[in-house]
Amino acid sequence: MAPIFLINGDSCEQISVQDRGLHYGDGIFETIAVHDHKPLSWSGHIRRLQSGCERLGIECPDKDVIESEVRQLSSASSPSVIKIIVTRGQGGRGYRVPERDNTTRIVASYPWPEFPSGNRNPGIISRICRTRIGRNQQLAGIKHLNRLEQVLARKEWSDPGIAEGIMLDDTGHVIEGTMSNLFLFRQGQLLTPDLSECGIAGVTRANILELAPALDMPVVIKQLALDEMFLAEEIFLCNSVIGIWSVRQIDKYRFDSGPGTGKIRNALLSAGLIAPA
Amino acid sequence: MAPIFLINGDSCEQISVQDRGLHYGDGIFETIAVHDHKPLSWSGHIRRLQSGCERLGIECPDKDVIESEVRQLSSASSPSVIKIIVTRGQGGRGYRVPERDNTTRIVASYPWPEFPSGNRNPGIISRICRTRIGRNQQLAGIKHLNRLEQVLARKEWSDPGIAEGIMLDDTGHVIEGTMSNLFLFRQGQLLTPDLSECGIAGVTRANILELAPALDMPVVIKQLALDEMFLAEEIFLCNSVIGIWSVRQIDKYRFDSGPGTGKIRNALLSAGLIAPA
Repeated sequence: MAPIFLINGDSCEQISVQDRGLHYGDGIFETIAVHDHKPLSWSGHIRRLQSGCERLGIECPDKDVIESEVRQLSSASSPSVIKIIVTRGQGGRGYRVPERDNTTRIVASYPWPEFPSGNRNPGIISRICRTRIGRNQQLAGIKHLNRLEQVLARKEWSDPGIAEGIMLDDTGHVIEGTMSNLFLFRQGQLLTPDLSECGIAGVTRANILELAPALDMPVVIKQLALDEMFLAEEIFLCNSVIGIWSVRQIDKYRFDSGPGTGKIRNALLSAGLIAPA
Repeated sequence: MAPIFLINGDSCEQISVQDRGLHYGDGIFETIAVHDHKPLSWSGHIRRLQSGCERLGIECPDKDVIESEVRQLSSASSPSVIKIIVTRGQGGRGYRVPERDNTTRIVASYPWPEFPSGNRNPGIISRICRTRIGRNQQLAGIKHLNRLEQVLARKEWSDPGIAEGIMLDDTGHVIEGTMSNLFLFRQGQLLTPDLSECGIAGVTRANILELAPALDMPVVIKQLALDEMFLAEEIFLCNSVIGIWSVRQIDKYRFDSGPGTGKIRNALLSAGLIAPA
């Protein structure tokens, strides 16, 4: 099934070659799971879209307009993945932003991807990527369109047995997967890397941070050293589409599929925040 | 005058919404001055285009095809600015690169921009940007499409009296202008920042590095502290379109328009590497 695109509301597959999204990656995106014809975690996604626009100084599309387009595509196809892209729109040559934003709004519907059920349990095999993530507090956390680091990291392997790669920043701290956020359990604590200098602050990550205390799992957000990650009792990766994947191996290190990851997954499922399969 | 675009050879103003240039900034670009209907420093630009593609693992368009398109647009309009964009082409959702590249090749002709003649001499007023440049050796030097840092830096000021902003990396070292490379003279030496961790290695910068020794100006490429920049006797900025701009002021610090900058400019002019006005 081919993806379907709405560009500023029009069903269309072309954008202007003058779009600043193309020239500079001057925009942001969201990736949303659609299940039972409903966009999951919609409030989290629209909030992050608005906050990303605000941080980059891009005029955010009207919330109701974008929601109605997302619902239109969700009704048409389910399960599916909705991708929203918002750019600063067309501009002339040069970095200077146009006096008036003419935001480009793209809402796309992609087929739901099939992942092996073993990715959830017993979990995936992962690897440490050589490509590092540069640090920039001003861009940290934003799901913006400057994603060459992720492209190069994902390009490091082609073995289909490796489902995801883990990226470090230039100081060697663990940050995230190429397309997912990382959590681990150790000595009764749930840990996840600090993203104040780089990385994407995922919506599922935010949902976990919110739900965990009620599960009696205090969460620690911290700078995570590679050594510390390898000492984890359980590791899992998350994003809006994959939900939660246990990690059973990273390079030569093996991890157990313990009870913590399952509890988090069940809590997200019960709250309707991730898709069941 | 509106810009003119050739997309994979066709005169056209739209690209596919599935282009990875839009989704990830997965590509590179060149900006070339056209004078007397000739693209200046063509060999430097095509070499950097090829090297950028190689570093990102993008299949580079055929040199002769791209050169013939650049010459076609240069004959049609001069003086002008040619912008080349090469992306990894269309792809599905996700960072993974398609098994086969289907590179998108864009060659565009823009009107020649008019800058005040005073930008050359006595020079421009500049400022230090708050937006920092993140470091990533794997991307350093490449003129790739991930340019949000430059967009945010250029967005910091609107005063038309300030012609360019200077950017530091996250450790506070001076790297470059938002759209230009930086050189300075101090104690008989020509200095320019080391770009092995971030920044764009400009074609005009490379031309200067090549010409300077014959002018009896040994060049030192080094990590440049802000304090050291402020102690400069002369500072200038360069790129393919502006040529050489003397810098007469950065924030509250003033600089002389000394003889070194003029010698460099004249050498580039004599070699036909920058446009006369």
